[in-house]
Amino acid sequence: MTPSHIEHIGIAVTNLETAINFYEKVLGLKCYHIEEVAEQKVRTAFFMVGQTKIELLESTDPEGPIGKYIAKKGEGIHHIAFAVEKIEDQLAHAEKLGVKLIDSTPRKGAEGLDIAFLHPKSTNGVLIELCENKKG
Amino acid sequence: MTPSHIEHIGIAVTNLETAINFYEKVLGLKCYHIEEVAEQKVRTAFFMVGQTKIELLESTDPEGPIGKYIAKKGEGIHHIAFAVEKIEDQLAHAEKLGVKLIDSTPRKGAEGLDIAFLHPKSTNGVLIELCENKKG
Repeated sequence: MTPSHIEHIGIAVTNLETAINFYEKVLGLKCYHIEEVAEQKVRTAFFMVGQTKIELLESTDPEGPIGKYIAKKGEGIHHIAFAVEKIEDQLAHAEKLGVKLIDSTPRKGAEGLDIAFLHPKSTNGVLIELCENKKG
Repeated sequence: MTPSHIEHIGIAVTNLETAINFYEKVLGLKCYHIEEVAEQKVRTAFFMVGQTKIELLESTDPEGPIGKYIAKKGEGIHHIAFAVEKIEDQLAHAEKLGVKLIDSTPRKGAEGLDIAFLHPKSTNGVLIELCENKKG
């Protein structure tokens, strides 16, 4: 039941190109993929750092989750995603312990992963995503 | 010049024991170390997830950096630390590109690492730490 690694860190940015430039030029990372996730109203850019992806999130709609987040809190780290197995069991386990869930059943996220969010009210203010790669 | 992995993710919490309980009971991680860093006015608790540590930070003084952060923004993800080599060269490189530095030269952080922070104004709102393990 223990997460194997941090799958990604989601970072809300106002301008994807400016942020990509920072991670490439200053930190020397390489953006390997840009994807629009229409359902989440974001454009995303991915970088690999060891086992973990940096996922930059630019809002495509002020009413989307990242648009609202930036309006309220500004740019910054939005969520952490833990790579797990048997995501349905993990969610049931968390719910049994009184953790409030945003997604009570997994849904499809970027890169085809099965994902679900726990509510920050139950997690010391941190938006935590669980995700599972069922593609093997 | 590319970071090898995410060394840790720092999370500001109001109560270390409550937060430890969440990461142990809900996520199944194991707290392997608790350390007070007097200089930073925090008590920290560490968990390993693959290559990356989760570092919970509880303030021991409202005037310390985490105390001020929580008063302003509440609990949540405070910073990301990238593991690098030749940290002095990395800082010089970032400064040359116009990045504002919080630490222009490395100082000692938790677990004896050499650390330095970049200023969030230059990094899309993300407090980024570079750290190097010179103990080998």
